[in-house]
Amino acid sequence: MVFASDSRTSAGPDNIAVYGKMMVWEAPGERVVVILSSGNLATTQSVIALLKMRARNEDGKSLPGGILRMRQMYDVVELVGATLSEVVNREKCARERGVDIDCSFIVGGQIDHKTPRLYRIYPEGNFIEATPQTNYFQIGETKYGKPIIDRVVKFNTPMKDVAKAFLVSFDSTMRSNLTVGLPIDLLLYRRDSCRVTQKRRFQQGDKYFSEISGIWSAGLRRAFAEVPPVPWEDEPER
Amino acid sequence: MVFASDSRTSAGPDNIAVYGKMMVWEAPGERVVVILSSGNLATTQSVIALLKMRARNEDGKSLPGGILRMRQMYDVVELVGATLSEVVNREKCARERGVDIDCSFIVGGQIDHKTPRLYRIYPEGNFIEATPQTNYFQIGETKYGKPIIDRVVKFNTPMKDVAKAFLVSFDSTMRSNLTVGLPIDLLLYRRDSCRVTQKRRFQQGDKYFSEISGIWSAGLRRAFAEVPPVPWEDEPER
Repeated sequence: MVFASDSRTSAGPDNIAVYGKMMVWEAPGERVVVILSSGNLATTQSVIALLKMRARNEDGKSLPGGILRMRQMYDVVELVGATLSEVVNREKCARERGVDIDCSFIVGGQIDHKTPRLYRIYPEGNFIEATPQTNYFQIGETKYGKPIIDRVVKFNTPMKDVAKAFLVSFDSTMRSNLTVGLPIDLLLYRRDSCRVTQKRRFQQGDKYFSEISGIWSAGLRRAFAEVPPVPWEDEPER
Repeated sequence: MVFASDSRTSAGPDNIAVYGKMMVWEAPGERVVVILSSGNLATTQSVIALLKMRARNEDGKSLPGGILRMRQMYDVVELVGATLSEVVNREKCARERGVDIDCSFIVGGQIDHKTPRLYRIYPEGNFIEATPQTNYFQIGETKYGKPIIDRVVKFNTPMKDVAKAFLVSFDSTMRSNLTVGLPIDLLLYRRDSCRVTQKRRFQQGDKYFSEISGIWSAGLRRAFAEVPPVPWEDEPER
């Protein structure tokens, strides 16, 4: 499984902040649970704060009913969905005043060597699961970066190619939407390892990220040049 | 100037129809006016019908106050905006019942060898003009196809490359959004010719369009393969 998220949060163009949108619960050898968020920051932060508080007590001990005690991924996604509904209900007077308090989550991971699972949670708290046919989810600003993922990411695509596709996809999105920005968090999870395989943050000015952005641009221009010209009965001058 | 539009209209996935979204008023040697539309079909059809009816009488003679008598492009775009407001006001009880009756237009052309102009009309009937910096407009389903246009289309890009970029952009959009579909209408207008330079419809199964779709896909995959792999401290197995 490959997870990637940006870190830009905005409530309008003059109110931009950096917040990670990737949360990881890891109990090495036993479970890895990753949650990505998009949407209203007050809502996502409340949901994540409640999930954290209910996962461990002050001494770091796991608590019953928390993410670290769930027996399977389905229970985790139900818990996240229910916590989202709880927060949204609490804030519903804000919604009635016309504030968009909606948010979405992607939840994935593996518990006790059971089948790894990947879910997408809707603002209503209900959710769907990924399948070999629908093998990835995007939330937030999804459209600009979707075409490249659609072309590259299949169920059997190697993890490293998926990671590369996600970074290229973020590059396209960041060019078109100012509210998506570095740093980007990238996490790889290899099935049955039950620990985070790799986690990396691409900061502003990251050498690799700048490099792929340039190489991808040049490759696109080359690909475009290879497309034959539009045929016309009579050639336009320029 | 290059204009392109698809022909898919839908009111839900089980109610799809083919309607051209490109309208041309041409008085060879004197004017070419092109209007592209997106949004609610009842609204766009009413606006276009009124513009047509008011442009010529039953005998094909141009009418005062119609598009064919406007002295400059600014007057044309004002007329289209005012006609849109007229239709929307007439239908405002539909909007009050929650129906999305909004639509947008792109209006471009040249009259009497004055400067060619390109405008984008908002659902409210007001509008903006293209400039060398903001040299193209998209309306309707814009996001999937925007990155390639952003990379290719500059103010001085040759007309044929712009046409190619628009077709590639439509190819990307059609892969991601079922409500965008062939046929695609493409129109080239060369400055100061005051007649349509080229107009072509790409039908379902069009040889060139299928070809560029395949070539572009292959080029993208090649460009993607050229992007170096994501560096990790320790290599993931797959």
